[in-house]
Amino acid sequence: MSIDRVHAARALADELDIDVVVVTPGSDLRYLCGYDAHAMERLTALAVPRRGEPLLVVPRLEAPMIEASPAGSLGLEVLPWDETDDSFARLAEAVTARLGSAPVRVAVGSRTWAEHALGIQRALPGSALELASPVIDRLRMVKTPAEVEELAIAGAAIDRVHARMGQWLRVGRTEAEVGADVAAAILAEGHVGVDFTIVGSGPNGASPHHEVSDRVVEAGDMVVVDIGGETATGYRSDCTRTYLVGGHAARGLTEWFAVLQRAQAAAVAAVRPGVTCAQIDAVARDVISKAGFGEHFIHRTGHGIGLDTHEAPYVVAGNDLPLEPGMAFSVEPGIYLPGRYGARIEDIVVCTDDGVRNLNNGPRELVELPG
Amino acid sequence: MSIDRVHAARALADELDIDVVVVTPGSDLRYLCGYDAHAMERLTALAVPRRGEPLLVVPRLEAPMIEASPAGSLGLEVLPWDETDDSFARLAEAVTARLGSAPVRVAVGSRTWAEHALGIQRALPGSALELASPVIDRLRMVKTPAEVEELAIAGAAIDRVHARMGQWLRVGRTEAEVGADVAAAILAEGHVGVDFTIVGSGPNGASPHHEVSDRVVEAGDMVVVDIGGETATGYRSDCTRTYLVGGHAARGLTEWFAVLQRAQAAAVAAVRPGVTCAQIDAVARDVISKAGFGEHFIHRTGHGIGLDTHEAPYVVAGNDLPLEPGMAFSVEPGIYLPGRYGARIEDIVVCTDDGVRNLNNGPRELVELPG
Repeated sequence: MSIDRVHAARALADELDIDVVVVTPGSDLRYLCGYDAHAMERLTALAVPRRGEPLLVVPRLEAPMIEASPAGSLGLEVLPWDETDDSFARLAEAVTARLGSAPVRVAVGSRTWAEHALGIQRALPGSALELASPVIDRLRMVKTPAEVEELAIAGAAIDRVHARMGQWLRVGRTEAEVGADVAAAILAEGHVGVDFTIVGSGPNGASPHHEVSDRVVEAGDMVVVDIGGETATGYRSDCTRTYLVGGHAARGLTEWFAVLQRAQAAAVAAVRPGVTCAQIDAVARDVISKAGFGEHFIHRTGHGIGLDTHEAPYVVAGNDLPLEPGMAFSVEPGIYLPGRYGARIEDIVVCTDDGVRNLNNGPRELVELPG
Repeated sequence: MSIDRVHAARALADELDIDVVVVTPGSDLRYLCGYDAHAMERLTALAVPRRGEPLLVVPRLEAPMIEASPAGSLGLEVLPWDETDDSFARLAEAVTARLGSAPVRVAVGSRTWAEHALGIQRALPGSALELASPVIDRLRMVKTPAEVEELAIAGAAIDRVHARMGQWLRVGRTEAEVGADVAAAILAEGHVGVDFTIVGSGPNGASPHHEVSDRVVEAGDMVVVDIGGETATGYRSDCTRTYLVGGHAARGLTEWFAVLQRAQAAAVAAVRPGVTCAQIDAVARDVISKAGFGEHFIHRTGHGIGLDTHEAPYVVAGNDLPLEPGMAFSVEPGIYLPGRYGARIEDIVVCTDDGVRNLNNGPRELVELPG
C-alpha cells in the first residue's frame, strides 16, 4: 500500500472541480488507503480535499486500529474524535481549513450511508452533495497487474469449487444442503468469506437471483450454480455454471444450451480495448435474440468486479464506456423459461492490451452429474 | 409479518409532515416488510408516501424473490423495473401519482447508500433529503414482546458460547485461533451469522474495538472477549466478558475489576421507564470516575440492539431520550489502560414496565480460566 491512490484521487478531484472527496468504510476506503474498517454509525471517513493534505477522521476508540492497518504507514493525518464530539463538524472544520474556504462540491462514496452523507452536508450548509464515482470508479475500474493477479487467484479458487460440484449436487438433496456444502468448500479453497451461493434447481433456475430453498433436486433437473466469495486481500470471485443432474440432455436441450454457450463465447471474444460495454452486451444479446430467446435474457450481460462483487464498469445497453486494458468484469448471459428452468454461464474476464484474459476456466458446457 | 408496521410508518410520516419515506435493503426494509434483500447497486426500495398505498420497487429479475419472502403476503404493490429503465424515475413517478404532487420532504433510511439517496433526489428535483430516523427509529427502538423473545434467544445462545470459553481461550494460542473457534461456536449455538469476535489479550484489551491478532495468549493475561452474531430471524447478540487466563488475580486487580462490576451493575439497576439514556451513562461513568478511572472509560455506555447490532437508542451523554418499556440496549462500561490491559462487561438489557430484564446472565466477575 502506498499513498499514490489517495494522491491520484486528489488530482482527479481537482481536475473535475470537486472540492472534497469523502469515503467511508467499505471497498472505497480499503481501495484508497488499505483500512478495512467495520461500517457503523460512528463516523470513520477519509477526506481528500482538492488541495492540501488528506485526513482520516476516526472515533478515538478505533484510532489504535489505524496503526495496525496498512493505512498506518501512509503518513495520513489522523483526526480522532471523542464520543460526545460532533464528528461531522470536526471533518468540516478540517477540510475548510485546508481549502481556505468551505467546500461547495462535496463528493461522497456511492455506498456511503445516508446518515453520514447528510451529516457532512449539514455541517457544511453551503455545500451540495454528489457521488464520488467519477473519481473513485475511474480509479478502481482499471486494475493494476497486481490486482488482476488477486482476481485470478480468486477465480482459480472458485473454479476448484465448481470442479468438485458432483460431490454435493445430487438427486435427493435440498438446494440448501448443497449450498451449505458449497459455502464450506468456498472457504476451504482459499476464500475468507462466502458472498453468495445460488443453487437454482429446476424451475428455481428461472429466477436469476434465487438463492437456495428446501426444494429437493430431482433426476433430470437443470441446476444453475452461481457462487462467489472474498479472498484475504478483499478481491472477489463470481462464477456460474449450469448442471444437469441425474440424467442425459435430450437433443433439444443440448441445442438450446448451445445458444447460450455461443452467446457467452462470442461476448468474451469481443472484449478488447475500445469496444464499449454496450457493444459487449449487444454481442451476447444478438446471439440469443436471433435464436428466438431474446425476451428470456432478462438481465444485463455483466458487471465489473474487484473489491466489490458488483462495481463499474457495467456491461449493459446504454453504457458507451470504451473498455481499457485492466478492466475486469463478468460475462454472464442467461436464458430463463419461467416455471420450467433456466441456464447461465458466467466467467470473469479482464481486458488486456490486445484482447481478453479469462479468469474462469472450467468447462462451460451443460455439465452432466451422475446424480 | 403483517402490514401494520408499514401503516405505522405512514401514519408517523404524515404526523411529521414527511411526504415519503424510502427504505432500501438492510434492517429497515426487513423490519418494515420482512424482505431480507441483498444490498446492491440495483435499486430495491420500499416507498411509503404519507397518503396512498406503499409500494415496493424491485429489479424485475428479483421480483420472484418478493413472493418467496414474508413481504409477498402483505399485499404490497410491486413495481418491477427492467435493466435499462431509470429505476429512480419509476419510483418518483409512482410516489408523485399517489400524492397528487411531487414530494418535497423525502426521508431515506439512515443506511441507504448515497447512490440511491442521491438518485431519488435527482429524480425529484424540488425535493430535499432528510433521514427517516424520526419515523423508523421511533418504531424500531421499542421492541414488541415477540422481538424481546428473539433477543432473549440470541442472548442465551451467546451466553452458552461464553460458558465454553475455557475450551478455546488458553495460554499459547493466538487470538486469531481463539476467535476462529469462538466463531464456529457462535454458529453451533444457534446463530446463522457471526458479526464479530473480539479477543483482546493483554495490551490489546486496551483497544476497545481490537478484533483478533497473531498475539499469543500468555499466562496471567487479562483478555476482553466481546462477541455477537445474528439469528435466523435477524436479531443480534452482543456480550462481553473479561477473562484472566492461566493465573490468579492479585488483590489489586480484583479491586480494580470490582469498580467496573459496580459501575455496570449500577447502570443496569438504574434502568426503568422515564430515566434518560444520558442518566444511565452517567450512573456507570460516575462510579468509574469516583474510583479515579474516568479518563480511561473512553466510550459511551451502550447502544440499542435489534435487527442491527448498533441502533437507537444510544446510551451516551447528551441523549435525553427517556427510556420506555421495550427498549433494548447494551450496558457495557469499560476501563482501558493503554499499553497494559483493559476490561469490559457487557449485557443486553430490556426496559420493562417497572424496571429491567437482563438478557445475558453469565458470571460478570473476572473469570479465571486455567490456561
